[in-house]
Amino acid sequence: MFRVGNGIDFHRLINEPFRPLMLAGVEVKSDFAFLGHSDADVILHAVADAILGAAGLGDIGQHFPDTDPIHKNMQSSLIVHKALSLAAEKGWKLVNVDCTYVGDHPKINPIRKELQQSLANIVSLPLEDVSIKATTSEGMGALGRSEGVLVMATILLEK
Amino acid sequence: MFRVGNGIDFHRLINEPFRPLMLAGVEVKSDFAFLGHSDADVILHAVADAILGAAGLGDIGQHFPDTDPIHKNMQSSLIVHKALSLAAEKGWKLVNVDCTYVGDHPKINPIRKELQQSLANIVSLPLEDVSIKATTSEGMGALGRSEGVLVMATILLEK
Amino acid sequence: MFRVGNGIDFHRLINEPFRPLMLAGVEVKSDFAFLGHSDADVILHAVADAILGAAGLGDIGQHFPDTDPIHKNMQSSLIVHKALSLAAEKGWKLVNVDCTYVGDHPKINPIRKELQQSLANIVSLPLEDVSIKATTSEGMGALGRSEGVLVMATILLEK
Repeated sequence: MFRVGNGIDFHRLINEPFRPLMLAGVEVKSDFAFLGHSDADVILHAVADAILGAAGLGDIGQHFPDTDPIHKNMQSSLIVHKALSLAAEKGWKLVNVDCTYVGDHPKINPIRKELQQSLANIVSLPLEDVSIKATTSEGMGALGRSEGVLVMATILLEK
Repeated sequence: MFRVGNGIDFHRLINEPFRPLMLAGVEVKSDFAFLGHSDADVILHAVADAILGAAGLGDIGQHFPDTDPIHKNMQSSLIVHKALSLAAEKGWKLVNVDCTYVGDHPKINPIRKELQQSLANIVSLPLEDVSIKATTSEGMGALGRSEGVLVMATILLEK
Repeated sequence: MFRVGNGIDFHRLINEPFRPLMLAGVEVKSDFAFLGHSDADVILHAVADAILGAAGLGDIGQHFPDTDPIHKNMQSSLIVHKALSLAAEKGWKLVNVDCTYVGDHPKINPIRKELQQSLANIVSLPLEDVSIKATTSEGMGALGRSEGVLVMATILLEK
Protein backbone atom coordinates (compact mmCIF):
# COMPACT_ATOMS: atom_id res chain seq x y z
CA MET A 1 0.00 0.00 0.00
CA PHE A 2 1.19 3.48 -0.85
CA ARG A 3 0.30 7.02 0.21
CA VAL A 4 1.54 10.35 -1.20
CA GLY A 5 1.98 13.59 0.71
CA ASN A 6 3.01 17.18 0.15
CA GLY A 7 4.51 19.76 2.47
CA ILE A 8 4.89 23.50 1.94
CA ASP A 9 6.84 25.78 4.22
CA PHE A 10 7.75 29.46 3.99
CA HIS A 11 10.24 31.28 6.19
CA ARG A 12 11.38 34.88 6.19
CA LEU A 13 15.05 35.74 5.90
CA ILE A 14 16.33 38.13 8.54
CA ASN A 15 19.70 39.79 8.94
CA GLU A 16 20.80 38.27 12.21
CA PRO A 17 24.40 37.12 12.18
CA PHE A 18 24.18 35.42 15.56
CA ARG A 19 21.21 33.23 14.81
CA PRO A 20 22.20 30.05 12.96
CA LEU A 21 20.66 29.52 9.50
CA MET A 22 19.51 25.90 9.46
CA LEU A 23 18.76 23.91 6.30
CA ALA A 24 18.10 20.17 6.32
CA GLY A 25 19.76 19.96 9.72
CA VAL A 26 22.95 21.72 8.57
CA GLU A 27 24.11 25.02 10.03
CA VAL A 28 24.81 27.14 6.94
CA LYS A 29 27.32 30.02 7.14
CA SER A 30 25.43 33.24 6.52
CA ASP A 31 24.84 36.72 7.89
CA PHE A 32 21.17 35.88 7.52
CA ALA A 33 18.88 33.44 9.27
CA PHE A 34 15.31 32.26 8.95
CA LEU A 35 12.77 33.78 11.30
CA GLY A 36 10.82 31.24 13.29
CA HIS A 37 9.90 29.90 16.69
CA SER A 38 11.81 26.62 16.35
CA ASP A 39 15.15 26.56 14.50
CA ALA A 40 13.12 27.52 11.38
CA ASP A 41 14.56 24.74 9.21
CA VAL A 42 12.31 25.24 6.20
CA ILE A 43 13.35 22.00 4.48
CA LEU A 44 12.75 19.78 7.50
CA HIS A 45 9.41 21.45 8.20
CA ALA A 46 8.18 20.77 4.66
CA VAL A 47 9.36 17.15 4.89
CA ALA A 48 7.71 16.58 8.28
CA ASP A 49 4.44 18.06 7.06
CA ALA A 50 4.48 15.84 3.95
CA ILE A 51 5.00 12.72 6.08
CA LEU A 52 2.19 13.68 8.47
CA GLY A 53 -0.09 14.52 5.54
CA ALA A 54 0.47 11.26 3.69
CA ALA A 55 -0.22 9.30 6.88
CA GLY A 56 -3.31 11.37 7.74
CA LEU A 57 -1.79 12.52 11.02
CA GLY A 58 -2.35 16.28 11.04
CA ASP A 59 0.40 18.85 10.54
CA ILE A 60 3.41 20.24 12.36
CA GLY A 61 1.45 23.29 13.58
CA GLN A 62 -0.83 20.90 15.45
CA HIS A 63 1.93 18.70 16.91
CA PHE A 64 4.40 21.53 17.58
CA PRO A 65 2.41 24.72 18.18
CA ASP A 66 4.61 27.82 17.88
CA THR A 67 2.84 29.26 20.90
CA ASP A 68 4.44 26.60 23.12
CA PRO A 69 7.71 27.83 24.71
CA ILE A 70 8.97 24.23 24.80
CA HIS A 71 9.42 24.41 21.00
CA LYS A 72 11.47 27.64 21.12
CA ASN A 73 14.61 27.16 18.99
CA MET A 74 13.78 23.43 18.87
CA GLN A 75 15.89 21.32 16.54
CA SER A 76 13.69 20.48 13.57
CA SER A 77 15.21 17.03 13.17
CA LEU A 78 13.15 16.16 16.26
CA ILE A 79 10.03 17.28 14.38
CA VAL A 80 10.88 14.97 11.47
CA HIS A 81 11.65 12.07 13.84
CA LYS A 82 8.30 12.58 15.56
CA ALA A 83 6.49 12.59 12.19
CA LEU A 84 8.29 9.39 11.14
CA SER A 85 7.53 7.68 14.41
CA LEU A 86 3.85 8.64 14.33
CA ALA A 87 3.68 7.29 10.75
CA ALA A 88 5.53 4.11 11.80
CA GLU A 89 2.94 3.50 14.54
CA LYS A 90 0.41 3.22 11.71
CA GLY A 91 2.72 0.90 9.79
CA TRP A 92 4.04 3.48 7.30
CA LYS A 93 7.64 3.57 6.11
CA LEU A 94 9.12 6.43 4.11
CA VAL A 95 10.07 5.46 0.52
CA ASN A 96 11.50 8.71 -0.88
CA VAL A 97 11.57 12.46 -0.34
CA ASP A 98 11.82 15.08 -3.08
CA CYS A 99 12.11 18.77 -2.17
CA THR A 100 12.17 21.93 -4.24
CA TYR A 101 13.72 24.99 -2.61
CA VAL A 102 12.63 28.33 -4.11
CA GLY A 103 14.85 31.23 -3.12
CA ASP A 104 17.89 33.32 -3.90
CA HIS A 105 19.55 33.40 -0.48
CA PRO A 106 21.24 31.30 0.57
CA LYS A 107 22.15 29.52 -2.65
CA ILE A 108 22.09 25.81 -1.94
CA ASN A 109 23.82 24.50 -5.05
CA PRO A 110 27.29 24.69 -3.48
CA ILE A 111 26.13 22.82 -0.37
CA ARG A 112 23.51 20.54 -1.88
CA LYS A 113 25.40 17.28 -1.28
CA GLU A 114 25.88 18.14 2.38
CA LEU A 115 22.21 19.05 2.82
CA GLN A 116 21.06 15.88 1.07
CA GLN A 117 23.36 13.71 3.19
CA SER A 118 22.08 15.36 6.35
CA LEU A 119 18.46 14.89 5.29
CA ALA A 120 19.18 11.24 4.37
CA ASN A 121 20.62 10.70 7.86
CA ILE A 122 17.66 12.38 9.54
CA VAL A 123 15.06 10.32 7.68
CA SER A 124 17.21 7.15 7.62
CA LEU A 125 17.07 6.68 3.86
CA PRO A 126 19.89 6.02 1.37
CA LEU A 127 21.15 9.21 -0.31
CA GLU A 128 19.59 8.23 -3.65
CA ASP A 129 16.10 8.35 -2.13
CA VAL A 130 16.49 11.90 -0.87
CA SER A 131 16.50 14.94 -3.14
CA ILE A 132 16.79 18.70 -2.64
CA LYS A 133 16.42 20.72 -5.82
CA ALA A 134 16.86 24.48 -6.15
CA THR A 135 15.14 27.10 -8.23
CA THR A 136 14.18 30.76 -7.96
CA SER A 137 11.07 32.80 -8.69
CA GLU A 138 13.16 34.66 -11.31
CA GLY A 139 13.04 37.84 -9.29
CA MET A 140 9.25 37.89 -9.07
CA GLY A 141 7.29 38.65 -5.92
CA ALA A 142 8.35 38.47 -2.29
CA LEU A 143 10.58 35.44 -2.90
CA GLY A 144 12.20 37.32 -5.81
CA ARG A 145 12.98 40.20 -3.44
CA SER A 146 14.65 37.67 -1.12
CA GLU A 147 12.19 38.37 1.68
CA GLY A 148 12.27 34.64 2.36
CA VAL A 149 12.21 31.20 0.83
CA LEU A 150 9.71 28.44 0.10
CA VAL A 151 10.22 24.70 0.19
CA MET A 152 7.83 22.16 -1.25
CA ALA A 153 8.32 18.50 -0.37
CA THR A 154 6.65 15.50 -1.98
CA ILE A 155 6.98 12.12 -0.32
CA LEU A 156 5.88 8.51 -0.76
CA LEU A 157 4.97 6.18 2.10
CA GLU A 158 4.65 2.39 1.88
CA LYS A 159 3.11 -0.17 4.22
CA MET B 1 -1.18 0.50 -11.29
CA PHE B 2 -0.78 3.90 -9.69
CA ARG B 3 -0.97 7.51 -10.86
CA VAL B 4 -0.12 10.72 -8.98
CA GLY B 5 -1.73 14.11 -9.44
CA ASN B 6 -1.47 17.65 -8.13
CA GLY B 7 -4.01 20.43 -7.89
CA ILE B 8 -3.43 24.11 -7.16
CA ASP B 9 -6.20 26.60 -6.51
CA PHE B 10 -6.15 30.25 -5.48
CA HIS B 11 -9.17 32.28 -4.35
CA ARG B 12 -9.43 35.86 -3.24
CA LEU B 13 -10.95 36.74 0.12
CA ILE B 14 -13.67 39.35 0.01
CA ASN B 15 -15.56 41.09 2.78
CA GLU B 16 -19.04 39.86 2.06
CA PRO B 17 -20.90 38.74 5.16
CA PHE B 18 -23.85 37.34 3.22
CA ARG B 19 -21.90 35.06 0.92
CA PRO B 20 -21.04 31.73 2.61
CA LEU B 21 -17.35 30.89 2.98
CA MET B 22 -17.03 27.28 1.88
CA LEU B 23 -14.08 25.02 2.71
CA ALA B 24 -14.07 21.29 1.98
CA GLY B 25 -17.86 21.40 1.74
CA VAL B 26 -18.30 23.07 5.14
CA GLU B 27 -19.90 26.49 5.54
CA VAL B 28 -17.42 28.34 7.76
CA LYS B 29 -18.61 31.25 9.92
CA SER B 30 -16.85 34.39 8.72
CA ASP B 31 -17.44 37.98 7.66
CA PHE B 32 -15.38 37.07 4.62
CA ALA B 33 -15.95 34.78 1.68
CA PHE B 34 -13.98 33.53 -1.30
CA LEU B 35 -14.62 35.25 -4.59
CA GLY B 36 -15.58 32.88 -7.37
CA HIS B 37 -18.16 31.83 -9.91
CA SER B 38 -19.06 28.53 -8.22
CA ASP B 39 -19.15 28.35 -4.40
CA ALA B 40 -15.36 29.00 -4.59
CA ASP B 41 -14.44 26.07 -2.35
CA VAL B 42 -10.68 26.29 -2.79
CA ILE B 43 -9.96 22.93 -1.13
CA LEU B 44 -12.46 20.97 -3.25
CA HIS B 45 -11.25 22.66 -6.44
CA ALA B 46 -7.64 21.66 -5.77
CA VAL B 47 -8.71 18.09 -4.98
CA ALA B 48 -10.87 17.80 -8.12
CA ASP B 49 -8.05 19.13 -10.30
CA ALA B 50 -5.58 16.66 -8.80
CA ILE B 51 -7.93 13.74 -9.52
CA LEU B 52 -8.51 14.88 -13.11
CA GLY B 53 -4.78 15.44 -13.60
CA ALA B 54 -3.72 12.04 -12.31
CA ALA B 55 -6.28 10.37 -14.57
CA GLY B 56 -5.32 12.48 -17.61
CA LEU B 57 -8.82 13.93 -17.86
CA GLY B 58 -8.27 17.67 -18.23
CA ASP B 59 -9.00 20.20 -15.52
CA ILE B 60 -11.95 21.77 -13.75
CA GLY B 61 -11.80 24.89 -15.95
CA GLN B 62 -12.47 22.67 -18.94
CA HIS B 63 -15.27 20.62 -17.35
CA PHE B 64 -16.85 23.52 -15.43
CA PRO B 65 -16.14 26.75 -17.34
CA ASP B 66 -16.71 29.81 -15.16
CA THR B 67 -18.34 31.51 -18.13
CA ASP B 68 -21.26 29.07 -17.94
CA PRO B 69 -24.16 30.46 -15.87
CA ILE B 70 -25.15 26.89 -14.95
CA HIS B 71 -22.10 26.73 -12.67
CA LYS B 72 -22.98 29.97 -10.84
CA ASN B 73 -22.70 29.33 -7.08
CA MET B 74 -22.50 25.61 -7.85
CA GLN B 75 -21.68 23.30 -4.95
CA SER B 76 -18.11 22.19 -5.44
CA SER B 77 -18.80 18.73 -4.03
CA LEU B 78 -20.50 18.12 -7.41
CA ILE B 79 -17.23 19.04 -9.13
CA VAL B 80 -15.34 16.50 -7.02
CA HIS B 81 -18.00 13.83 -7.64
CA LYS B 82 -17.74 14.46 -11.39
CA ALA B 83 -13.94 14.15 -11.29
CA LEU B 84 -14.19 10.90 -9.32
CA SER B 85 -16.78 9.46 -11.66
CA LEU B 86 -14.79 10.38 -14.78
CA ALA B 87 -11.74 8.73 -13.20
CA ALA B 88 -13.81 5.67 -12.22
CA GLU B 89 -14.92 5.26 -15.85
CA LYS B 90 -11.23 4.72 -16.65
CA GLY B 91 -10.94 2.26 -13.77
CA TRP B 92 -9.22 4.62 -11.29
CA LYS B 93 -9.99 4.63 -7.59
CA LEU B 94 -8.78 7.33 -5.18
CA VAL B 95 -6.24 6.07 -2.61
CA ASN B 96 -5.48 9.18 -0.56
CA VAL B 97 -5.69 12.98 -0.63
CA ASP B 98 -3.23 15.35 1.03
CA CYS B 99 -3.86 19.10 0.97
CA THR B 100 -1.85 22.07 2.17
CA TYR B 101 -3.78 25.27 2.82
CA VAL B 102 -1.69 28.46 2.73
CA GLY B 103 -3.41 31.46 4.27
CA ASP B 104 -4.09 33.50 7.37
CA HIS B 105 -7.87 33.87 7.11
CA PRO B 106 -9.79 31.89 7.97
CA LYS B 107 -7.61 29.85 10.31
CA ILE B 108 -8.49 26.21 9.75
CA ASN B 109 -6.78 24.64 12.75
CA PRO B 110 -9.84 25.03 15.00
CA ILE B 111 -12.08 23.41 12.37
CA ARG B 112 -9.67 20.98 10.77
CA LYS B 113 -11.39 17.80 12.00
CA GLU B 114 -14.71 18.99 10.62
CA LEU B 115 -13.19 19.91 7.24
CA GLN B 116 -11.36 16.59 6.99
CA GLN B 117 -14.50 14.62 7.87
CA SER B 118 -16.47 16.53 5.25
CA LEU B 119 -13.79 15.94 2.61
CA ALA B 120 -13.65 12.25 3.55
CA ASN B 121 -17.42 12.01 3.06
CA ILE B 122 -17.26 13.81 -0.29
CA VAL B 123 -14.51 11.57 -1.69
CA SER B 124 -15.80 8.42 0.09
CA LEU B 125 -12.52 7.62 1.84
CA PRO B 126 -11.84 6.77 5.49
CA LEU B 127 -10.75 9.81 7.52
CA GLU B 128 -7.16 8.53 7.81
CA ASP B 129 -6.73 8.76 4.03
CA VAL B 130 -7.72 12.42 3.86
CA SER B 131 -5.52 15.24 5.11
CA ILE B 132 -5.79 19.02 5.26
CA LYS B 133 -2.71 20.77 6.60
CA ALA B 134 -2.35 24.48 7.27
CA THR B 135 0.51 26.90 6.93
CA THR B 136 1.06 30.57 6.08
CA SER B 137 3.40 32.49 3.83
CA GLU B 138 4.78 34.16 7.01
CA GLY B 139 3.34 37.50 6.01
CA MET B 140 5.05 37.53 2.61
CA GLY B 141 3.37 38.54 -0.64
CA ALA B 142 -0.32 38.68 -1.52
CA LEU B 143 -1.12 35.63 0.61
CA GLY B 144 0.72 37.26 3.53
CA ARG B 145 -1.48 40.35 3.14
CA SER B 146 -4.54 38.04 3.35
CA GLU B 147 -5.66 38.96 -0.17
CA GLY B 148 -6.59 35.33 -0.57
CA VAL B 149 -5.50 31.75 0.01
CA LEU B 150 -3.85 28.92 -1.89
CA VAL B 151 -4.49 25.19 -1.63
CA MET B 152 -2.26 22.52 -3.08
CA ALA B 153 -3.56 18.96 -3.23
CA THR B 154 -1.56 15.82 -3.98
CA ILE B 155 -3.42 12.60 -4.63
CA LEU B 156 -2.80 8.96 -5.50
CA LEU B 157 -5.00 6.87 -7.79
CA GLU B 158 -4.96 3.08 -8.09
CA LYS B 159 -6.40 0.70 -10.68
CA MET C 1 9.19 0.00 -6.67
CA PHE C 2 7.89 3.54 -6.98
CA ARG C 3 9.27 7.03 -6.42
CA VAL C 4 7.47 10.40 -6.52
CA GLY C 5 8.93 13.73 -7.57
CA ASN C 6 7.96 17.36 -7.86
CA GLY C 7 9.24 20.14 -10.10
CA ILE C 8 8.62 23.88 -9.83
CA ASP C 9 9.64 26.38 -12.46
CA PHE C 10 9.01 30.11 -12.79
CA HIS C 11 9.69 32.21 -15.88
CA ARG C 12 9.17 35.88 -16.54
CA LEU C 13 7.10 37.02 -19.50
CA ILE C 14 8.77 39.60 -21.70
CA ASN C 15 7.45 41.55 -24.65
CA GLU C 16 9.72 40.24 -27.36
CA PRO C 17 7.88 39.39 -30.55
CA PHE C 18 10.89 37.79 -32.22
CA ARG C 19 11.71 35.33 -29.46
CA PRO C 20 9.56 32.18 -29.68
CA LEU C 21 7.34 31.40 -26.67
CA MET C 22 7.84 27.70 -25.98
CA LEU C 23 5.48 25.54 -23.94
CA ALA C 24 5.81 21.76 -23.70
CA GLY C 25 7.92 21.83 -26.86
CA VAL C 26 5.32 23.79 -28.85
CA GLU C 27 6.04 27.22 -30.30
CA VAL C 28 3.04 29.27 -29.19
CA LYS C 29 2.01 32.35 -31.20
CA SER C 30 2.43 35.39 -28.98
CA ASP C 31 3.93 38.86 -28.83
CA PHE C 32 5.43 37.71 -25.56
CA ALA C 33 8.08 35.17 -24.68
CA PHE C 34 9.57 33.69 -21.52
CA LEU C 35 12.88 35.09 -20.38
CA GLY C 36 15.57 32.48 -19.91
CA HIS C 37 18.95 31.19 -20.93
CA SER C 38 17.68 28.06 -22.68
CA ASP C 39 14.41 28.20 -24.66
CA ALA C 40 12.73 28.87 -21.27
CA ASP C 41 10.11 26.14 -21.68
CA VAL C 42 8.63 26.37 -18.20
CA ILE C 43 6.58 23.16 -18.53
CA LEU C 44 9.48 21.01 -19.70
CA HIS C 45 11.77 22.42 -17.02
CA ALA C 46 9.32 21.52 -14.25
CA VAL C 47 8.88 18.02 -15.71
CA ALA C 48 12.65 17.43 -16.02
CA ASP C 49 13.24 18.59 -12.45
CA ALA C 50 10.51 16.29 -11.14
CA ILE C 51 12.07 13.29 -12.92
CA LEU C 52 15.55 14.12 -11.60
CA GLY C 53 14.16 14.67 -8.10
CA ALA C 54 12.24 11.40 -7.94
CA ALA C 55 15.34 9.51 -9.10
CA GLY C 56 17.66 11.36 -6.69
CA LEU C 57 19.74 12.74 -9.55
CA GLY C 58 20.07 16.44 -8.74
CA ASP C 59 18.29 19.19 -10.64
CA ILE C 60 18.37 20.88 -14.02
CA GLY C 61 20.42 23.81 -12.68
CA GLN C 62 23.17 21.34 -11.86
CA HIS C 63 23.04 19.40 -15.15
CA PHE C 64 22.42 22.44 -17.38
CA PRO C 65 23.96 25.49 -15.69
CA ASP C 66 22.61 28.72 -17.15
CA THR C 67 26.13 30.15 -17.02
CA ASP C 68 27.22 27.72 -19.73
CA PRO C 69 27.00 29.26 -23.23
CA ILE C 70 26.41 25.78 -24.68
CA HIS C 71 22.90 25.85 -23.15
CA LYS C 72 22.01 29.22 -24.70
CA ASN C 73 18.58 28.91 -26.38
CA MET C 74 18.85 25.14 -25.93
CA GLN C 75 15.75 23.11 -26.77
CA SER C 76 14.29 22.00 -23.47
CA SER C 77 13.15 18.66 -24.89
CA LEU C 78 16.84 17.73 -24.71
CA ILE C 79 16.79 18.53 -21.00
CA VAL C 80 13.82 16.19 -20.49
CA HIS C 81 15.46 13.46 -22.59
CA LYS C 82 18.62 13.75 -20.50
CA ALA C 83 16.62 13.52 -17.26
CA LEU C 84 14.78 10.43 -18.56
CA SER C 85 17.98 8.77 -19.70
CA LEU C 86 19.75 9.43 -16.38
CA ALA C 87 16.74 7.95 -14.58
CA ALA C 88 16.69 4.97 -16.98
CA GLU C 89 20.33 4.25 -16.15
CA LYS C 90 19.16 3.67 -12.57
CA GLY C 91 16.32 1.47 -13.84
CA TRP C 92 13.51 4.05 -13.50
CA LYS C 93 10.70 4.37 -15.99
CA LEU C 94 8.25 7.29 -16.03
CA VAL C 95 4.66 6.28 -15.16
CA ASN C 96 2.77 9.57 -15.42
CA VAL C 97 3.22 13.34 -15.42
CA ASP C 98 0.75 15.85 -14.04
CA CYS C 99 1.41 19.59 -14.43
CA THR C 100 -0.39 22.66 -13.16
CA TYR C 101 0.29 25.89 -15.05
CA VAL C 102 -0.44 29.08 -13.07
CA GLY C 103 -0.67 32.17 -15.25
CA ASP C 104 -2.85 34.48 -17.28
CA HIS C 105 -0.73 34.81 -20.43
CA PRO C 106 -0.66 32.88 -22.59
CA LYS C 107 -3.92 31.08 -21.93
CA ILE C 108 -3.31 27.40 -22.53
CA ASN C 109 -6.88 26.13 -22.58
CA PRO C 110 -7.26 26.67 -26.36
CA ILE C 111 -3.99 24.81 -27.06
CA ARG C 112 -4.00 22.28 -24.25
CA LYS C 113 -4.47 19.20 -26.46
CA GLU C 114 -1.53 20.22 -28.62
CA LEU C 115 0.70 20.86 -25.60
CA GLN C 116 -0.27 17.56 -24.01
CA GLN C 117 0.39 15.64 -27.24
CA SER C 118 3.78 17.30 -27.57
CA LEU C 119 4.68 16.50 -23.95
CA ALA C 120 3.50 12.89 -24.45
CA ASN C 121 5.79 12.60 -27.47
CA ILE C 122 8.74 14.09 -25.60
CA VAL C 123 8.42 11.76 -22.60
CA SER C 124 7.26 8.77 -24.70
CA LEU C 125 4.06 8.17 -22.76
CA PRO C 126 0.51 7.64 -24.00
CA LEU C 127 -1.55 10.84 -23.98
CA GLU C 128 -3.69 9.63 -21.06
CA ASP C 129 -0.62 9.52 -18.80
CA VAL C 130 0.30 13.15 -19.45
CA SER C 131 -1.64 16.09 -18.06
CA ILE C 132 -1.34 19.87 -18.24
CA LYS C 133 -3.90 21.74 -16.16
CA ALA C 134 -4.36 25.50 -16.04
CA THR C 135 -5.28 27.91 -13.31
CA THR C 136 -4.52 31.49 -12.28
CA SER C 137 -3.60 33.26 -9.05
CA GLU C 138 -6.90 35.17 -9.40
CA GLY C 139 -5.05 38.42 -10.02
CA MET C 140 -2.96 38.16 -6.85
CA GLY C 141 0.76 38.87 -6.66
CA ALA C 142 3.37 38.91 -9.40
CA LEU C 143 1.69 36.05 -11.28
CA GLY C 144 -1.61 37.94 -11.07
CA ARG C 145 0.06 40.96 -12.67
CA SER C 146 1.23 38.67 -15.50
CA GLU C 147 4.88 39.26 -14.70
CA GLY C 148 5.40 35.59 -15.43
CA VAL C 149 4.07 32.08 -14.91
CA LEU C 150 4.66 29.12 -12.63
CA VAL C 151 4.45 25.43 -13.45
CA MET C 152 4.38 22.66 -10.89
CA ALA C 153 4.87 19.08 -12.08
CA THR C 154 4.28 15.91 -10.09
CA ILE C 155 5.51 12.62 -11.49
CA LEU C 156 5.66 8.94 -10.64
CA LEU C 157 8.57 6.63 -11.48
CA GLU C 158 8.50 2.82 -11.43
CA LYS C 159 11.27 0.23 -11.48
